[in-house]
Amino acid sequence: MFITFEGIDGSGKSTQVRLLAEALEAAGHDVIRTREPGGSPGAEEIRALVLQGDPERWSPETEILLFTAARRDHLERTITPALAAGKVVLCDRFADSTRMYQGLSRGDLRAQVDDLHRLMIGREPDLTFLIDIDPAVGLARAKGRQGHEERFEDMGVAMQARMRAGFLELAREFAPRFRVIDGARAPEAVAADVLAQTQAALAGRA
Amino acid sequence: MFITFEGIDGSGKSTQVRLLAEALEAAGHDVIRTREPGGSPGAEEIRALVLQGDPERWSPETEILLFTAARRDHLERTITPALAAGKVVLCDRFADSTRMYQGLSRGDLRAQVDDLHRLMIGREPDLTFLIDIDPAVGLARAKGRQGHEERFEDMGVAMQARMRAGFLELAREFAPRFRVIDGARAPEAVAADVLAQTQAALAGRA
Repeated sequence: MFITFEGIDGSGKSTQVRLLAEALEAAGHDVIRTREPGGSPGAEEIRALVLQGDPERWSPETEILLFTAARRDHLERTITPALAAGKVVLCDRFADSTRMYQGLSRGDLRAQVDDLHRLMIGREPDLTFLIDIDPAVGLARAKGRQGHEERFEDMGVAMQARMRAGFLELAREFAPRFRVIDGARAPEAVAADVLAQTQAALAGRA
Repeated sequence: MFITFEGIDGSGKSTQVRLLAEALEAAGHDVIRTREPGGSPGAEEIRALVLQGDPERWSPETEILLFTAARRDHLERTITPALAAGKVVLCDRFADSTRMYQGLSRGDLRAQVDDLHRLMIGREPDLTFLIDIDPAVGLARAKGRQGHEERFEDMGVAMQARMRAGFLELAREFAPRFRVIDGARAPEAVAADVLAQTQAALAGRA
């Protein structure tokens, strides 16, 4: 089963990936944790190429191509072999992040993102958790975290609010595989919710 | 005018790019010479990522995505601005090389190459010179050139013959923009032919 986690910065999704991995492993599942962009040696190199240097150095179109190349490598080298070996794959961000971020920066890019995905990726997750959180709550949390606050504050709460809305829209568009989880609660409460939904999905396939 | 040069190794196309640039500059044209993969700072970085290291490190599909990303950057940063400024752009290899090499390595990739090109590149050259040469002649020439012979011989004459056939097939497929030039003659004779065809094409657009 291929499970992805999406959400804005400060939503706590990385913590949730870890907690779900621990719970599934305790229940006897073979789990791998991965992330995007990156997740395989080649994809990590492409990630470095995209994210390093001047933010204007790549056009949005070139950036989509590089992210798609990284995703293809990640899929071939990490995700597909793990699924074939019967593992549960937990991935921090996947194609939905590209749909949301690129679509937000320039609305006309969404069709190109979708065409590229259909042509070169194809695969959708079996289950996607959107850890949903009010950007103001996320910001308050991030302020308590050393090192993270600056990047987060740079983004601005207004931009975070647009991203949250973008993710909620994707959750409606791909309703069958999305689970919107209230991320404002204590991490353990959120984790219990995520685990219950995952167990239900695993039981449904068994 | 956007002019590309294609052909197998040892065909002498790099020499022809240089000779045509010199002749056009002498006639008062503003010319830029470029090449693929590469041709812009970002595309050169992607080129290094694709070509360095283990040849098996990228799948053919990931490689096509990376080459398309490099081509998109090359087009945006080098080719399109030069054409907009009224320059003649001479490019050593372009999309036809991807069509030929990827199609040759795995026939089912050609459709994917074409879909990606249509989606993310769009532009075709105005004129393409295929410098056509018998692989045995190319090999004999390469043997006289320090440093090049090993790579060339590694490829094998049989493989070079398949590539030559692949290029000739593309020249039939895209007949209106292709000019097949006999590259077995002295470089000056080939250059005179290339220049005459270019002048005819420039006159046709004036």
